[in-house]
Amino acid sequence: MDEQGEILPPGAASTRIASLELPPLRNAWHVAGWAAEITEGVLARRTVCDERLVLYRGSNGKLVALQDRCAHRWAPLSMGRVEGTGLRCMYHGIKYGSDGHCVELPGQEKAPTALCVRAYPIVERHRLAWVWPGDAARADENLIPDLGMLDDPQWRLYHGHLEYEANYALVNDNLLDLTHVNFLHENTLGRPVQTAAAGEVRPPLARSADAQRLESGVRREGWYPGGRLVATPRGTPDGDLWVRTDFLVPGLYISRGGIYAPGTAAACTGSPPQSRHRALCDGLAVHAVTPMTARRTRYFYLQAFRASDASEEETEAIWQISKEAFLEDVRMIEGQQQNIATHPGLRLAGIAADRSLVMFRGLMKTLLARDK
Amino acid sequence: MDEQGEILPPGAASTRIASLELPPLRNAWHVAGWAAEITEGVLARRTVCDERLVLYRGSNGKLVALQDRCAHRWAPLSMGRVEGTGLRCMYHGIKYGSDGHCVELPGQEKAPTALCVRAYPIVERHRLAWVWPGDAARADENLIPDLGMLDDPQWRLYHGHLEYEANYALVNDNLLDLTHVNFLHENTLGRPVQTAAAGEVRPPLARSADAQRLESGVRREGWYPGGRLVATPRGTPDGDLWVRTDFLVPGLYISRGGIYAPGTAAACTGSPPQSRHRALCDGLAVHAVTPMTARRTRYFYLQAFRASDASEEETEAIWQISKEAFLEDVRMIEGQQQNIATHPGLRLAGIAADRSLVMFRGLMKTLLARDK
Amino acid sequence: MDEQGEILPPGAASTRIASLELPPLRNAWHVAGWAAEITEGVLARRTVCDERLVLYRGSNGKLVALQDRCAHRWAPLSMGRVEGTGLRCMYHGIKYGSDGHCVELPGQEKAPTALCVRAYPIVERHRLAWVWPGDAARADENLIPDLGMLDDPQWRLYHGHLEYEANYALVNDNLLDLTHVNFLHENTLGRPVQTAAAGEVRPPLARSADAQRLESGVRREGWYPGGRLVATPRGTPDGDLWVRTDFLVPGLYISRGGIYAPGTAAACTGSPPQSRHRALCDGLAVHAVTPMTARRTRYFYLQAFRASDASEEETEAIWQISKEAFLEDVRMIEGQQQNIATHPGLRLAGIAADRSLVMFRGLMKTLLARDK
Repeated sequence: MDEQGEILPPGAASTRIASLELPPLRNAWHVAGWAAEITEGVLARRTVCDERLVLYRGSNGKLVALQDRCAHRWAPLSMGRVEGTGLRCMYHGIKYGSDGHCVELPGQEKAPTALCVRAYPIVERHRLAWVWPGDAARADENLIPDLGMLDDPQWRLYHGHLEYEANYALVNDNLLDLTHVNFLHENTLGRPVQTAAAGEVRPPLARSADAQRLESGVRREGWYPGGRLVATPRGTPDGDLWVRTDFLVPGLYISRGGIYAPGTAAACTGSPPQSRHRALCDGLAVHAVTPMTARRTRYFYLQAFRASDASEEETEAIWQISKEAFLEDVRMIEGQQQNIATHPGLRLAGIAADRSLVMFRGLMKTLLARDK
Repeated sequence: MDEQGEILPPGAASTRIASLELPPLRNAWHVAGWAAEITEGVLARRTVCDERLVLYRGSNGKLVALQDRCAHRWAPLSMGRVEGTGLRCMYHGIKYGSDGHCVELPGQEKAPTALCVRAYPIVERHRLAWVWPGDAARADENLIPDLGMLDDPQWRLYHGHLEYEANYALVNDNLLDLTHVNFLHENTLGRPVQTAAAGEVRPPLARSADAQRLESGVRREGWYPGGRLVATPRGTPDGDLWVRTDFLVPGLYISRGGIYAPGTAAACTGSPPQSRHRALCDGLAVHAVTPMTARRTRYFYLQAFRASDASEEETEAIWQISKEAFLEDVRMIEGQQQNIATHPGLRLAGIAADRSLVMFRGLMKTLLARDK
Repeated sequence: MDEQGEILPPGAASTRIASLELPPLRNAWHVAGWAAEITEGVLARRTVCDERLVLYRGSNGKLVALQDRCAHRWAPLSMGRVEGTGLRCMYHGIKYGSDGHCVELPGQEKAPTALCVRAYPIVERHRLAWVWPGDAARADENLIPDLGMLDDPQWRLYHGHLEYEANYALVNDNLLDLTHVNFLHENTLGRPVQTAAAGEVRPPLARSADAQRLESGVRREGWYPGGRLVATPRGTPDGDLWVRTDFLVPGLYISRGGIYAPGTAAACTGSPPQSRHRALCDGLAVHAVTPMTARRTRYFYLQAFRASDASEEETEAIWQISKEAFLEDVRMIEGQQQNIATHPGLRLAGIAADRSLVMFRGLMKTLLARDK
């Protein structure tokens, strides 16, 4: 594997690479939280790409993201108080507006110009709060990926978050190579797709080799007649499985899949199902990976099932299994991180299943080079 | 603000300063503990200015401070045993006298001269144990500030201590600018002095601008007709408040205040109350800030009310509120410290309320330059 | 004391030494665990001399030690699954044989040659698992010390382990100078040998001065008429005590002792007891000190009493006292380590009791020089 992790031909020796860990991509929209969690009066501390932020919702309903340290003597603004659309530092009472400028300095009529804090572009869209930790001038809202599907009322939605003591790139890798579901999640998510004999991997998880490069990510897409979704409600009849999984920079996983009446795959001749094809069961997963610090990552996850496909108990049960599986990921990736931390100077042996993550890391390399 | 933190005129830009954190002043008397806590048989571990000490009271009643590591193989003497006026290391049994010289070496008749540990000047005065971590030859007992008032039997005294995960200079700053009481302690100590409208600060807390420089500290002093002590017993009639607050190097806060019959302020024409003026309510607070390590500080606090002014229940209630307030300080300053630790290369914006701390930091700079 | 810690004559000044802490000796057999703990299916994580290992017992009953990180993307193999004599990584399913070569790569027919992990020489002998973290070509099984006595069915054996947050050399020092039993363990193991007057040390613990150098360690050996074992079952009649304590590189303590009928010492004229001498009470202790990282050490301990000498309750009671004593060692040595860590650039004052540890450190210095 070279620096970008090119896959080695069988028989080749391993190659030294700089690091499996990557610096954060600052000039990008990062998920900072579920918008619904930041209600009025809440001061949410968030570290995004090494920036310590405080998020709050002003009295006008708009989200604000400020640097979480007062310009006066660096007290945390997250220990402050929302007042109208502004935020008051509760150490010595300095109040900032939503643009970060001082609007009130107790006991002094005129504030020095320097008394201001950095405000970060923040956008609430599709249930998520998106923040841009880099150069505000480059923060184009059109770059926020379209998750309009989340607004569809057909879904029964579940979401949560957790933290990894690991570099975000390792978490991305995990989502880019789903062959791990067969092994790491053999007792949870992997159960319905589990291999009969060790060493054999069933589709759709083995399809890493089919990865195509998108402008801002990697796509795997295909029909699997007789396949099952990783989390399929019981009682769903057999049929043709269609799955499309996009992984977008800097760390957004969007997976959409459904089971269709047998024969639909053949009828579509490789193309995605069309609007006239009605899925017997429909599922959606969105995961967002946000770098906090070099070795700490916040992970937001959402799973949605069509209310018409399964009972609430059934979908709740799948959700519980998914959450168990996410903790299996945490344990494994934190172990991987510890090995990387204690043994700098990696030599890795690449395999065929690495194809999509190698593709994605190549894309990240290009973007990181422009991220100065 | 320059290195000493000069206050910026309104409109000025912030200035880079080396650090809000200061090195410890080693050639100074530091409070190492409440004398009453070091009873016979107690071995008190204390870190003062990066020196690890063990304190104990010998059989002659005198306090002793030794370096907390045996000269033999560096075992902690604080795991040892007091024997008479000496201390035995309980690893291999070497016994030291109160001057740090070996007085007994098990299994060997004559001890090598090198087998001795450093003894530190220690003085018990006014309920406190004062230690000099620097050059013993410079340890002049006359430099210990006069806290003789603590020996006055009129007081109902309360004292305690806590630890900050923060550089001591941040804790000093907190005591030097009491405008923070209005905001940080709005629900505890600040309640009686709280502002009606946000942004307005009531005296006496706003009087940072009146600070005068003492030879070894900073004083704020004045009359506030109609003022209240930060912690005033209920039922105290209104009157003229007089407060004097000294902050002495390296970190001693002494605040004395009283409420006097209305008209006393005018009668004194700016001078302190005289002995013929009898306070309606009298209060005293002494806080000592002792650097442990670069980012760890021990904080000793004492509050006293005249037994004649309020019931024990009343003064106990004020004490509970004060302890809550001290924890509010800890949370804020530790947050400030974390921001400083993660963002080296400070740019600060100074304000008028910083005046006394800027003055005090200037004094510390001079002393630290002589502290080699 | 020079770098090796030469003992100072009385009156001499202390000398600066590089460090009390030593690097690990990699080319040596280290105890990695009690063999009985590694049963089939167990994956034991062990760090030995900075190497992270996973140990397991294959289906053929043989122990295996592999590097605890998968060659693919460095996931911990200790989170894997034993399959036959091999080990499968449960992240992406790569399976390794006991020699560390990949034997199965899911979804790919031929594995790259680079896909292999390091296998370490491991030997199960005398109840212990011995591992060689250095150059496998130098791993000669004949270098494993003879602990054949452990296989003798006469013993009632107790064993356990604990961890020190300290460099292994400090733990070795502790076992090399047993005068500490009189002080550190005065309320546990030291009780029966305790000094009447402070400062006086009873044999056999003072006999550090008698240490003789062995090819690979240090021996103290002798007769002590009227002596007692550190842990002697109650009811054992008085007699002549004989003790032999060997401390072997890199950190193995073997102590054998017994009480014989009065007069046996005189009859032996200084030589060890002979086979015709039957001990009234016989004891054995084996401790192994294994460096994990620079400041973390695993400590394995075993104590054995002859079943015929004392009841199970009696020996169990001694075992409980011993375990308390081991925790006394941990607290003291971790305190010593903290002092060393915070005060680099040691000056030590050596004493007569240091003789065996100075001898042993000299031997280690020679071996470490050859350990590149």
